[in-house]
Amino acid sequence: MLDSLLLVGIGLLGGSVGMAVRRRGVARRVIGVDRKWAVLNTAKQLGVIDEGTTNLEEAIANTKFVVFCTPVDTIVDLGRSVAEHCSPGTTLTDVGSTKRKIMAELAGVFPDGVDFVGSHPLAGSEKKGVEHSNPELFQDRLTIVVPDETAPVETIEQVSGFWKAIGSRIRVMAADDHDEALALTSHLPHLVASALAGILPSEYYELAAGGFRDTTRIAASSPTIWKGIFQHNRDTVLAGIACLEKRIGQFREALERQDEERLSELLSEGKKVRDALGN
Amino acid sequence: MLDSLLLVGIGLLGGSVGMAVRRRGVARRVIGVDRKWAVLNTAKQLGVIDEGTTNLEEAIANTKFVVFCTPVDTIVDLGRSVAEHCSPGTTLTDVGSTKRKIMAELAGVFPDGVDFVGSHPLAGSEKKGVEHSNPELFQDRLTIVVPDETAPVETIEQVSGFWKAIGSRIRVMAADDHDEALALTSHLPHLVASALAGILPSEYYELAAGGFRDTTRIAASSPTIWKGIFQHNRDTVLAGIACLEKRIGQFREALERQDEERLSELLSEGKKVRDALGN
Repeated sequence: MLDSLLLVGIGLLGGSVGMAVRRRGVARRVIGVDRKWAVLNTAKQLGVIDEGTTNLEEAIANTKFVVFCTPVDTIVDLGRSVAEHCSPGTTLTDVGSTKRKIMAELAGVFPDGVDFVGSHPLAGSEKKGVEHSNPELFQDRLTIVVPDETAPVETIEQVSGFWKAIGSRIRVMAADDHDEALALTSHLPHLVASALAGILPSEYYELAAGGFRDTTRIAASSPTIWKGIFQHNRDTVLAGIACLEKRIGQFREALERQDEERLSELLSEGKKVRDALGN
Repeated sequence: MLDSLLLVGIGLLGGSVGMAVRRRGVARRVIGVDRKWAVLNTAKQLGVIDEGTTNLEEAIANTKFVVFCTPVDTIVDLGRSVAEHCSPGTTLTDVGSTKRKIMAELAGVFPDGVDFVGSHPLAGSEKKGVEHSNPELFQDRLTIVVPDETAPVETIEQVSGFWKAIGSRIRVMAADDHDEALALTSHLPHLVASALAGILPSEYYELAAGGFRDTTRIAASSPTIWKGIFQHNRDTVLAGIACLEKRIGQFREALERQDEERLSELLSEGKKVRDALGN
């Protein structure tokens, strides 16, 4: 059990971490930092945090376990700005959807005895804001824990233990491997969902049924958050786009050549993968 | 109320029509035709049909309302094979996901007093088989009714009334308009879902979370059924692919040029459309 937990940024993810931690008694006190008092007040009412503050430096000096729950393109600056205020023995982590750039740019930033080990819980929603918090968001989901080579084993275990305590399974990965994988499992699907939605003329909205809605659901996510993710994982996402363009080209050729067998083969390959994932 | 309803092909859709019709008392008797006795027996056990037969010609001669619930590439041949056995006053419809080719190839096939008016209920599942039938499948969904220019108004109304009686809303459209719209709302998303699933290496399966699962759900559908749909709507799907490739290219350029504003704009356009559709 943690004496206190500091959540920096109280949106859907920060709020869900707070609710899960309080419900399961993982920390004695949950403190939330946000720039907006309105968000902190809502978070308190919803049972997400015990107390809220806009003073990050002060809050971080008084907590030994910190989770950054802000968009990926803010985490490095936040880390740098708080580094000198962290007391020895502080562990920091995050929930960012990219890891390579964050880990690289935070390397060496924190003083001795203060460790940042990245995290990425594979859980979320196209909805944003503390009001959509869900204490079961991490239950049975996978959280990827990303240490750099300097991270002490105990800190990796502490961060892993934290996510386990709120229901998550754990996989430890290197930042590069994480970003390679997530480009295909998350970032590229997001881009494609957005592209499919973006080209739909308004006169067809009424005709968009379950298949379209599923396929494009994540296109409703925050452009601000996703712009940052794409920029962080730019080269790998570009490689993913090339791979997808090639595959779509194979479908196109099969259609153009009226090659039934090839079309069937391509569809079967997709089905095989999707069936392997289960519901 | 119909005296009897004949369902040709008892899979997920035929089964769901049967269940819905029996539950709501839309027909006095529901007769199912399928090539497989095992399917007919299951359908009877599940309450989908009152009786089953493998003899289509005999069954069609004794029924005045027929719904073809087989894959799109079988409907034209079925229609042709039964035309001479239909008694005057028979209305035929279908549930096929494409309409242009079916309507064109069935034009003039049926004798006087026998009318085929196409239907496409925008409801389904990536699952197949009568065992996944759902009597509420059509509730509050849209069914597109597609008459050709020879269809009597009463027949269009009868077919529309049938779908309304099992919970559906109705929109009457021309076959060309239907296929143009569905290329973007259904066929292209399906192709892309299949492409995204198909390029995922097996070592990343564990990392595919909710976003990937939603985006690729329909890739689990039957390749046989979808191969037919793509071939029927080939030219329009090819035009859709070109449109999507252009859009993905715009994302790629924005990433390559690190054009934050353009990236944000593209993501916002997708979000605007998806938000407009609701859940």
